[in-house]
Amino acid sequence: MKNIIDAIHPTDPVVMREAAAYQDRLLKPAGSLGQLEAIAVQIAGITGRLHNRTERKIHFLFGSDHGIYDEGVSGSPQHFTRMLMEFYARDAGCGINVLCRQAGVDLKLVDMGVKDLAPHPAIDARYRLMPNGTENFARRRAMPRETATEAVKAGFELVGEAKEQGFQIVGTGEVGMGNTTPAAACIMASLGIDDPELAVGRGGGLTDEAFENKKRVIAAALKRHGPDPDDPLDVLSCVGGLDIAGMTGVFLGAAQHRLPVVIDGVISIAAALLACKIAPPAQDFMIASHLSKEPGSGIAAERLKLVPLLNLGLRLGEGSGCPIAMQIVDDALAVMNSMCTFDGVSLESEYRKKLKA
Amino acid sequence: MKNIIDAIHPTDPVVMREAAAYQDRLLKPAGSLGQLEAIAVQIAGITGRLHNRTERKIHFLFGSDHGIYDEGVSGSPQHFTRMLMEFYARDAGCGINVLCRQAGVDLKLVDMGVKDLAPHPAIDARYRLMPNGTENFARRRAMPRETATEAVKAGFELVGEAKEQGFQIVGTGEVGMGNTTPAAACIMASLGIDDPELAVGRGGGLTDEAFENKKRVIAAALKRHGPDPDDPLDVLSCVGGLDIAGMTGVFLGAAQHRLPVVIDGVISIAAALLACKIAPPAQDFMIASHLSKEPGSGIAAERLKLVPLLNLGLRLGEGSGCPIAMQIVDDALAVMNSMCTFDGVSLESEYRKKLKA
Repeated sequence: MKNIIDAIHPTDPVVMREAAAYQDRLLKPAGSLGQLEAIAVQIAGITGRLHNRTERKIHFLFGSDHGIYDEGVSGSPQHFTRMLMEFYARDAGCGINVLCRQAGVDLKLVDMGVKDLAPHPAIDARYRLMPNGTENFARRRAMPRETATEAVKAGFELVGEAKEQGFQIVGTGEVGMGNTTPAAACIMASLGIDDPELAVGRGGGLTDEAFENKKRVIAAALKRHGPDPDDPLDVLSCVGGLDIAGMTGVFLGAAQHRLPVVIDGVISIAAALLACKIAPPAQDFMIASHLSKEPGSGIAAERLKLVPLLNLGLRLGEGSGCPIAMQIVDDALAVMNSMCTFDGVSLESEYRKKLKA
Repeated sequence: MKNIIDAIHPTDPVVMREAAAYQDRLLKPAGSLGQLEAIAVQIAGITGRLHNRTERKIHFLFGSDHGIYDEGVSGSPQHFTRMLMEFYARDAGCGINVLCRQAGVDLKLVDMGVKDLAPHPAIDARYRLMPNGTENFARRRAMPRETATEAVKAGFELVGEAKEQGFQIVGTGEVGMGNTTPAAACIMASLGIDDPELAVGRGGGLTDEAFENKKRVIAAALKRHGPDPDDPLDVLSCVGGLDIAGMTGVFLGAAQHRLPVVIDGVISIAAALLACKIAPPAQDFMIASHLSKEPGSGIAAERLKLVPLLNLGLRLGEGSGCPIAMQIVDDALAVMNSMCTFDGVSLESEYRKKLKA
């Protein structure tokens, strides 16, 4: 892990200053394209180049099952994890299939431990670390520390491969019945939040009774394991999920390979938070796609100083916000690459000054 | 105007119920795609068909000058209105040129009264109603009532032509130095807001002093003219702009011709508000693109019960939020058109029920 941490450096402040100055030369009041400007500046800092494109896009979707499911924290049957992975693999018209197609995004499916999932050419099963998913962390650790480390490394490696294949931007999604429970637990553990009322939401949908139970389960597990907030691998091992661990690795890999990486909902941002605990500069490479209704998501976004681009009320999972946000990233880079500058037109200099005021 | 009003009918509730029921058959927890679902249902209600496409997109950009500019309400030189119109026409790499190209949107430029703007094949000058722009409404009415009516009809006619040409979705943008002032004044007049602190923002950028002046100018003009809140043509005549009036017509035209129409920032939403005063069902056809920082925009969005899709901090104008939002509309329709339904897969019925809980 130390190798990984040592290879992660912040975005380049010199190039970012240059990019911001270039933005101010574009034919518009300074700052008037808001987040579109910020994204283009950020990506310049990531790649070290003023002008960039994210034509080749990849979205990682991690499937895994969660032992904590047995505590009644999900409203859906557990075999939906397997079934949905099969549908994604067949490009059968799930939300993420449609949205990736719309945005020209390659979908990469990774089985980290989905019960009874048969091999499929479209599913990468090299990192099927726990074939039955994690343990029930109401009773014991979700996974051994070594497995958490392996899962993080898996995500890291996958980004390395994607970079070699020429991908220029990375998305992070998941499927795993019950996985908003480990996500909320990881966020609470990382940020030292004890009160589940603050950080736990209803996930895909829960009755009032099941929601109360979910909060109790999380609070009890955190009390039982007492994960070290400053040791993300301990957090993952105690109350995490294989999907969250894999995505944590993707965030680290994106930072090391200097690719922008898009965050989806609460599970993805839990991983983002853990990645930043492991290597704080990883934060510089993240773009938040949408504002999730899960309270843990908002808390984590605030901590990571991220501004979600979309306000769509999404709670599907699968990383569904990522391909949509990637379209906006393309727009942001097109503005940077194609808008004319004041130099390109003959404007009297006092007017230039005025327009920038 | 009565002909127009009589020809506007609400979205079709029967088709919308059918569309919502169809959404619930898609392979996802009910409601989990949030605004993507809402947009597809809305457009079904607009066209009367369950499945829709918005492949052919048009964005109307109205240019006009504003007499109120003389009161020092803008930080930019007035001839920027003309200059920017010329740049748009030359496809010279302004923000809206780039963003329309990204989203595959045709840009239609309309000169409603831009000072010294020479004819150009890419600019429609048929509705150049006041060649020097509006009057200074600090001193007299911005325009005669007849002109306001003509300007609204212009926007209305333009949508009729677009519909005939096969366009399936419409955007609304503008350029006109100083035009956030009439926009704020129209919103305040329509909603009976007296206190400019509540509804006036800094537009493209103003010093503190100029901002205080802008608020004073608006409050004094509203007091002077006392426009009738329930008579949008009186509001436009007293404190409006030709761009706002033209866009008001676009919203009415979209409603009559049953096309979805996208709102941009505060100027566009001021027109949307006026259109809804003229014909309340026009509201059903509107999609709010982004959350503007201008306070009047938020007030109007709330009144119109609109949920802006994007949180990008845009304040460029030109309708820059519209092409970006149109990409999301495409995504929403793709979900409706291409996601698989539960019927398409064999799911045990108790699980279907569970997933919908």
